[in-house]
Amino acid sequence: MASHAQVSVTAVSKVINNAYGVSPAMRNKVRTAIDELGYRPQAVARGMRGRTFTIGLVLPHIRNPFFADILDGLTTHLDTTDYQAFMIQGGATRPVEHRAVDALLSRQVDGLIMVAPLASKNRLEHIAQDKPLVVLARHERSPHYDSVLADDEAGAELAVAHLLQLGHRRIAHITHQDDSLARPADLLHTIRAATYQRLMREHGLAGHIAIATSYYNEQGGYDGARELLARTPRPTAIFAGADQAALGALAAAHDAGLTVPGGLSVAGYDNTHLAALPNIALTSIDQDGHEMGRAAGKLLLERIEGRRTPVRFTVTPTLIVRASTAAPPAP
Amino acid sequence: MASHAQVSVTAVSKVINNAYGVSPAMRNKVRTAIDELGYRPQAVARGMRGRTFTIGLVLPHIRNPFFADILDGLTTHLDTTDYQAFMIQGGATRPVEHRAVDALLSRQVDGLIMVAPLASKNRLEHIAQDKPLVVLARHERSPHYDSVLADDEAGAELAVAHLLQLGHRRIAHITHQDDSLARPADLLHTIRAATYQRLMREHGLAGHIAIATSYYNEQGGYDGARELLARTPRPTAIFAGADQAALGALAAAHDAGLTVPGGLSVAGYDNTHLAALPNIALTSIDQDGHEMGRAAGKLLLERIEGRRTPVRFTVTPTLIVRASTAAPPAP
Repeated sequence: MASHAQVSVTAVSKVINNAYGVSPAMRNKVRTAIDELGYRPQAVARGMRGRTFTIGLVLPHIRNPFFADILDGLTTHLDTTDYQAFMIQGGATRPVEHRAVDALLSRQVDGLIMVAPLASKNRLEHIAQDKPLVVLARHERSPHYDSVLADDEAGAELAVAHLLQLGHRRIAHITHQDDSLARPADLLHTIRAATYQRLMREHGLAGHIAIATSYYNEQGGYDGARELLARTPRPTAIFAGADQAALGALAAAHDAGLTVPGGLSVAGYDNTHLAALPNIALTSIDQDGHEMGRAAGKLLLERIEGRRTPVRFTVTPTLIVRASTAAPPAP
Repeated sequence: MASHAQVSVTAVSKVINNAYGVSPAMRNKVRTAIDELGYRPQAVARGMRGRTFTIGLVLPHIRNPFFADILDGLTTHLDTTDYQAFMIQGGATRPVEHRAVDALLSRQVDGLIMVAPLASKNRLEHIAQDKPLVVLARHERSPHYDSVLADDEAGAELAVAHLLQLGHRRIAHITHQDDSLARPADLLHTIRAATYQRLMREHGLAGHIAIATSYYNEQGGYDGARELLARTPRPTAIFAGADQAALGALAAAHDAGLTVPGGLSVAGYDNTHLAALPNIALTSIDQDGHEMGRAAGKLLLERIEGRRTPVRFTVTPTLIVRASTAAPPAP
């Protein structure tokens, strides 16, 4: 094909990957040749260093709408290229995740994006030796793969500071547990929980620290909130580390006969579509999953093209105030 | 490997696929040989009629939690086998879906499950000539692929009959549109809308038929409900064809200052996890997505094993009454 268009294989590759450094004229020339020849990515792939034009996306599960935001962002970027994303559910345990990654690698994808993986840093670096890799939502630094993450410390600070500013003192937190082999300090849920504790201490509220350890999903939030609301004195605000858990906390408040925000303030994290529904109206932390997914796709394709310098792309979260948080009830 | 275990390739294949007709003793023998040899599915695959032990799952998108139920059911079944599912987002248009299917086929999956595909029946039969295929949530009959579906007419009847029984007469409906090439009568949303109209006519309420055509998602439900609630006289109940749309309808009711169910009853379809949250408490139709996903996995593996007789697996839906529906307000 490259000879038909009178351009180099590198230029064809750049056009296909929508890379920089290709003039509009060259892009048209290559695209025209592609159209004339009834080009199919698979066919070209065989000629171009064995490339398959597929990337693998490992998600813990698909139930969290925040992951749908990430996928939408990734798809938005890939739609400008000839790449396709295959998703695989990494599941809740390391053996399942391990098997999922092996399956993708044996199907010879050109690169991998792993969202909040459970694997150790060593394992991730091992994968990165085999394939270009971008890791989402983990905080460690590696010379072998790219990272896309949000500043979870800044995000948790925004949430807790918002509740403090409203006058809350008995602020509780719902966190997550899994069998990740990452260093705790590199895990987003550990960072959010540690930041919550730090702010409470800094405001002389160490005695009011109350953490329920469950899961970042509806049931986890429901169970965690029930545990927290059974304490005496009862918290006046709950900061859930994820919107999914906050939805469960809202349900637990409802079951306990507490109005939100009159009897209990609830804040989440992720600013999912559900948080924005006016009858849920959840105060949340936005970390722009769409942009994170877009960035991950862009970085991975750059790596596939040959970049070796590790890149770290960090989103700064923002606070979205809605009707689920207000001043605490009068004592 | 088969020679090491002193068993036939067919027996190994049956154990790997968790098929019937294998004695526990044989299963142990094969499993032991697999463990001793450090067996990897990929390695076996090359020896066994080119099998890859991966199947492709084409979903319209991952944002609908009902699809997560389907995936959970599928995964539950595959976890008893050596198969893995690769997902790919079929998207909102036929060209995107076409490209997604091509990508899966060129990566040589052993079979395909397509959920609510937009493709024509001809195209599906064309795919089925190439690969074992199971189609979810479409109603046409084909001699070339298996179907897993719910009885959408029965489900819609349950929802509308429930609202009629509560005393509603001005019942409106929110339906879905896409660029599917299926016969309208084979599409679940067309069936649900037609059943709604039939029941209204049968109860002498043809004059109260009111349908908003938007999308089965939150924004679609919100827009549809706003359109319906602007009519004079206003409907006292809305039957949304999917829970995702019902969530949007609840939000629209909230914005219009209507309490649910006091001012407006809302019923959904799919009985997603969100419908069950006590502060949403949405009356809905359960069609057991988990069981549909499990059945699809089982049928596909049987087809991969050689079954050619087409199978049709139909779930009978049930009505789940919650707090979002009640008698209409006094006139």
